[in-house]
Amino acid sequence: PNEIWRTRARARLDTLTKPLGSLGRLEDLAAQLVAIRHEHLVLPLNKAVYVFAADHGITAEGVSAYPSAVTHQMVLNFLTGGAAVNVLARLHGVALHVVDVGVAADFDNIEGLLHHKVSNGTKNMLREAAMTDEELSRALLVGAQLANEAAVAGHTILAVGEMGIGNTTAASAITCAITGSAESLATGRGTGLDDAAHARKIAIVEAVLKKHFANSTSPHPLEVLRCVGGLEIAAMTGMILAAARNRVAIIADGFISTAAAALAVALEPKVEGYLIAGHRSEEPGHRLLLDYLKLTPILDLEMRLGEGSGAVLAMSIIKSAIGLYSQMATFTSAGISEASL
Amino acid sequence: PNEIWRTRARARLDTLTKPLGSLGRLEDLAAQLVAIRHEHLVLPLNKAVYVFAADHGITAEGVSAYPSAVTHQMVLNFLTGGAAVNVLARLHGVALHVVDVGVAADFDNIEGLLHHKVSNGTKNMLREAAMTDEELSRALLVGAQLANEAAVAGHTILAVGEMGIGNTTAASAITCAITGSAESLATGRGTGLDDAAHARKIAIVEAVLKKHFANSTSPHPLEVLRCVGGLEIAAMTGMILAAARNRVAIIADGFISTAAAALAVALEPKVEGYLIAGHRSEEPGHRLLLDYLKLTPILDLEMRLGEGSGAVLAMSIIKSAIGLYSQMATFTSAGISEASL
Repeated sequence: PNEIWRTRARARLDTLTKPLGSLGRLEDLAAQLVAIRHEHLVLPLNKAVYVFAADHGITAEGVSAYPSAVTHQMVLNFLTGGAAVNVLARLHGVALHVVDVGVAADFDNIEGLLHHKVSNGTKNMLREAAMTDEELSRALLVGAQLANEAAVAGHTILAVGEMGIGNTTAASAITCAITGSAESLATGRGTGLDDAAHARKIAIVEAVLKKHFANSTSPHPLEVLRCVGGLEIAAMTGMILAAARNRVAIIADGFISTAAAALAVALEPKVEGYLIAGHRSEEPGHRLLLDYLKLTPILDLEMRLGEGSGAVLAMSIIKSAIGLYSQMATFTSAGISEASL
Repeated sequence: PNEIWRTRARARLDTLTKPLGSLGRLEDLAAQLVAIRHEHLVLPLNKAVYVFAADHGITAEGVSAYPSAVTHQMVLNFLTGGAAVNVLARLHGVALHVVDVGVAADFDNIEGLLHHKVSNGTKNMLREAAMTDEELSRALLVGAQLANEAAVAGHTILAVGEMGIGNTTAASAITCAITGSAESLATGRGTGLDDAAHARKIAIVEAVLKKHFANSTSPHPLEVLRCVGGLEIAAMTGMILAAARNRVAIIADGFISTAAAALAVALEPKVEGYLIAGHRSEEPGHRLLLDYLKLTPILDLEMRLGEGSGAVLAMSIIKSAIGLYSQMATFTSAGISEASL
């Protein structure tokens, strides 16, 4: 982000008919977006959300309350418009794109889906690396190319979301590898595990980290992604890196997409200024990642759904911030007295 | 609110294509609104915000960073569409009504303003009661009648906001009288006082409380409103009471409107179930009131503007909650497997 533009944005905010700073974080968000875009933004913002779907070999270990087939079923739900992210995208004027980057099912040439399948899901990371080098590269490129296309199409702000049964387990492993957190702190209940299943999931994350990184205290982010990541997580990492290069703001959603954001920042620290945390998820590992990234989320509504739902909801707040920035009267234009004390 | 309808709402939420409870507070909000309205709500919600404007005699004591004339000037800004609440109401499909209940200026018959002036502002509560009994009654009725009209017009959800230079001083005095909080904790910097002016404001709130309630540890809410309230605060209290009687949900905004809500609940505890806290303001007294009312705000964006701005912004989240409630697919309709663990 460009600091001269951020200063210009702050100066403009101080001319608007409100006490100085009284719009709080809405002012910070407006200034960040202006600094990212190098222009005084107006509405509409041209917003899009990309939902990346992929399956996870680790589900063989019983880490999720839902069967793996739900990834495929939920993609069909996205395509028919019935999922939470569909409703929120419609309500808030956000273009929704659903991307198959590795679902373990054949969609044939079904319409409305972006077909970028790298493989039929990752391998079981308890036994072997989740991906090969080639699979990792291809998944990263899927996201990067879509971000480049979105930038060319004039999108100024992108949200990333995901669907992949088992992917909180991958996100927990990534969180531990990147932040050094304990597995028990970074591993939550996902879609709704009971106590026994939660304890088993923690033990699996511990075993996964021991298998891949026992001899490495700070593994390279790409090695983390390849060994314990997911195809949808890699695609989101690629999208975040490319969006920042294109001066497009990125709204992270919950735990999984913020794990992708943490990997992107670990690979390229400059990405941080382009990131906005849409909300704070109930998954405990999300807090660890937000602290690591020094991000304060816009919303805190105890959501834990994924799909980009929290990020799209936050876009309504961001839209409001830019609406206020561009449409409010100034003290001069409205003939209003300024503060006297 | 009707608990049978709340249970029906919860049952419906559990059929939607998401892990149980994963929409967090959005589910609570949807269930509360259904319980208030006794029906399965759909969009549009038919939302309105009422901004009540009035002046305060206490401004003679130098309690605000802005001159009293700004109340009048900002009402004109509301009428020409340049204030923050105008922008937010336009963006989020909320009907905006501006009500003169006691501005110390003559608006003649200017169009677009609801003319319900009770007097040219309150009297200086450091010297005498802010209002007479008759002024209090008339101000309460202004709000109550507008709420009744809004209910007849089919509004299902109302936000209350205000404009009145000096009204954080009144809200601080109300907070102390109702919750028993110390003046130093309940008195903030309003639109932006420096340290010295802030200390003076605290001393004034202490003197005001001593003058009116030295001999009364728990004064009657109507006596609090009459002695240390404001005409716009009384009108909001009247609106909140009448909205609840009409089964219309009420979104409180920041410190001042929540003071009105606390008075309404003190007068009629059943009002509590109809209240939603739109956001958490930066004014320290607001936290005391939210604790007193046991309300958790939807948003926490460090705003401190008033005008109903935080409440209208929160309406975009409430709209989302009802959109999800009414438009998401169910597990059965989408053919999705349910949780197996």
